[in-house]
Amino acid sequence: MTMDTALSYTAGAAYVGGQIVPIAQAAIPILDLGFLHSDATYDVVHVWNGRFFRLDAHLDRFERGMAKLRMSLPIDRDGIREILHECVRASGLDNAYVELICTRGMAAPGSRDPRDCVNQFYAFAVPFAWVATPEHQKRGLSVHVSSVQRIAPESVDPTVKNYHWLDLVQGLYDAYDHDAETALLSDAEGNVVEGPGFNVFAVTAGVLVTPKSGVLEGITRKTALEIGAQLGVELGLRVEERALPYGELTSASEVFVTSTAGGIMPVTTIDGRAIGAGVPGPVTQKIGAQYWAMHEDPRYSEPVD
Amino acid sequence: MTMDTALSYTAGAAYVGGQIVPIAQAAIPILDLGFLHSDATYDVVHVWNGRFFRLDAHLDRFERGMAKLRMSLPIDRDGIREILHECVRASGLDNAYVELICTRGMAAPGSRDPRDCVNQFYAFAVPFAWVATPEHQKRGLSVHVSSVQRIAPESVDPTVKNYHWLDLVQGLYDAYDHDAETALLSDAEGNVVEGPGFNVFAVTAGVLVTPKSGVLEGITRKTALEIGAQLGVELGLRVEERALPYGELTSASEVFVTSTAGGIMPVTTIDGRAIGAGVPGPVTQKIGAQYWAMHEDPRYSEPVD
Ligand SMILES: Cc1ncc(COP(=O)(O)O)c(C=O)c1O
Ligand SMILES: Cc1ncc(COP(=O)(O)O)c(C=O)c1O
Repeated sequence: MTMDTALSYTAGAAYVGGQIVPIAQAAIPILDLGFLHSDATYDVVHVWNGRFFRLDAHLDRFERGMAKLRMSLPIDRDGIREILHECVRASGLDNAYVELICTRGMAAPGSRDPRDCVNQFYAFAVPFAWVATPEHQKRGLSVHVSSVQRIAPESVDPTVKNYHWLDLVQGLYDAYDHDAETALLSDAEGNVVEGPGFNVFAVTAGVLVTPKSGVLEGITRKTALEIGAQLGVELGLRVEERALPYGELTSASEVFVTSTAGGIMPVTTIDGRAIGAGVPGPVTQKIGAQYWAMHEDPRYSEPVD
Repeated sequence: MTMDTALSYTAGAAYVGGQIVPIAQAAIPILDLGFLHSDATYDVVHVWNGRFFRLDAHLDRFERGMAKLRMSLPIDRDGIREILHECVRASGLDNAYVELICTRGMAAPGSRDPRDCVNQFYAFAVPFAWVATPEHQKRGLSVHVSSVQRIAPESVDPTVKNYHWLDLVQGLYDAYDHDAETALLSDAEGNVVEGPGFNVFAVTAGVLVTPKSGVLEGITRKTALEIGAQLGVELGLRVEERALPYGELTSASEVFVTSTAGGIMPVTTIDGRAIGAGVPGPVTQKIGAQYWAMHEDPRYSEPVD
């Protein structure tokens, strides 16, 4: 990190300790249980061409996660919204990856009781990050379905967006070992659920299917489901949220993954074998085009102040 | 935090960014994946009466964890040992809780590849912290066996000491809701495994039993197993590492939990019912006395430089 980057906002801006600072200076107390116990929830929303996409849906999910973890903040939704706008404004970015975080905070000295903590709010805006860049999306992703299991809902509620990523990270290393670019994980029953930062969809026998349980209710997933339902007749597809067995995934005509960090991203290879024709398919492309078009629609997006 | 505490080392000392600082100033970069993906391993060792207890066993476990997560540091074991001694020395504490941490570090801007990260080392020494204080240990702990399941080994290797604590924290809230002081969690088969920061032992029908799998291989657990094997004949017990069903736990004559944060701690109530006579039992007390005696033994402890 050069001096320039450290002092400027071009690499991003963060809100920590109640003020906006350049991202290179943004740090959290080492004793925050958000770090030491990963006792935190977060959300990621993006800004595309100067507009936040579905910010309210992200704030809804964030607030639901906080409530489930029994966290609360002295800042209300409008305050959070204002801080996110400020981070993006300070960074000057047109396309940004914007993260908002609520941590348990610090315990009183000697205490191990999470009820004694003052919950903390942090946020940052950095340049838009891609699970797969637009260039990469043209040829599609190569995926390995890892033998590492996704953390079960009986242990950690996957609908609370959380930082428990060691399973996903080990899955990623597993994918690299299998010459794939990224990973999908399964549940204990062997159904494919999600990957490091994305949900998954398969087009199979007239159905657009995505796993129903054991997953984060992704906002991109939600958007793809809405587009799928809308274009269903045109595409000759109905939409289903249900279990997705490995065999159904690998024999699908199209597979794509969805994330705020990249949108609707085609998967063209799974475990070394081509999916469909081995190139991004028409359903994936139509849903992707519609997804990006919605970013200009004021019903789904709002300009950075 | 008053100005005094912020500037002094009496509340603890930390090693961050290559230097020793007062704990109140210790912070980690918000972009460190050790925070954003809980992609980290750690260890906790304690200093009692000016002596580190079983530091080598803790360093062994830490290094094994790093290797399993494919992390490495430019500092070797002697370097780490020296930093830990320095943190304790700077704090001036006779009894300290000493944490050492290796995180994945920061990804290159725009990259999501953990292989691009430079792994980071952090450490801190703060006043000794207790799961249950000595006063509290005299009457014993009241425990609730939560319905939240411990994260499965198929998802996250529990022998790699990690910050994935949301299951443990939710278990703790569950315990509070059931008027208990702390929690034990079970695995998917319904066997009791461990709690927020401790392993568990039961004395039942001539056997001292502790769960074998799905748990951190605690250094206090290891020490209790060694003492149990040593005193076995005297106590009329043999030691077993195997599955511990709920019914065997609640019908045990004694139950205790083990942690670097407190030692050998009696459990006298589980789910509202007394264990044995409802007071700390003789096996627990003998193992506890031996455990603390070992802290003076140079085979197991070393003075802070
Ligand atoms: C585990 C997991 N699943 C799915 C997603 C996709 O969610 P969204 O579409 O809201 O970005 C994410 C996003 O980071 C995630 O972390
Ligand atoms: C999940 C878990 N189990 C067990 C333990 C006890 O391990 P040790 O005796 O090494 O402190 C800990 C310590 O923090 C822990 O976090």
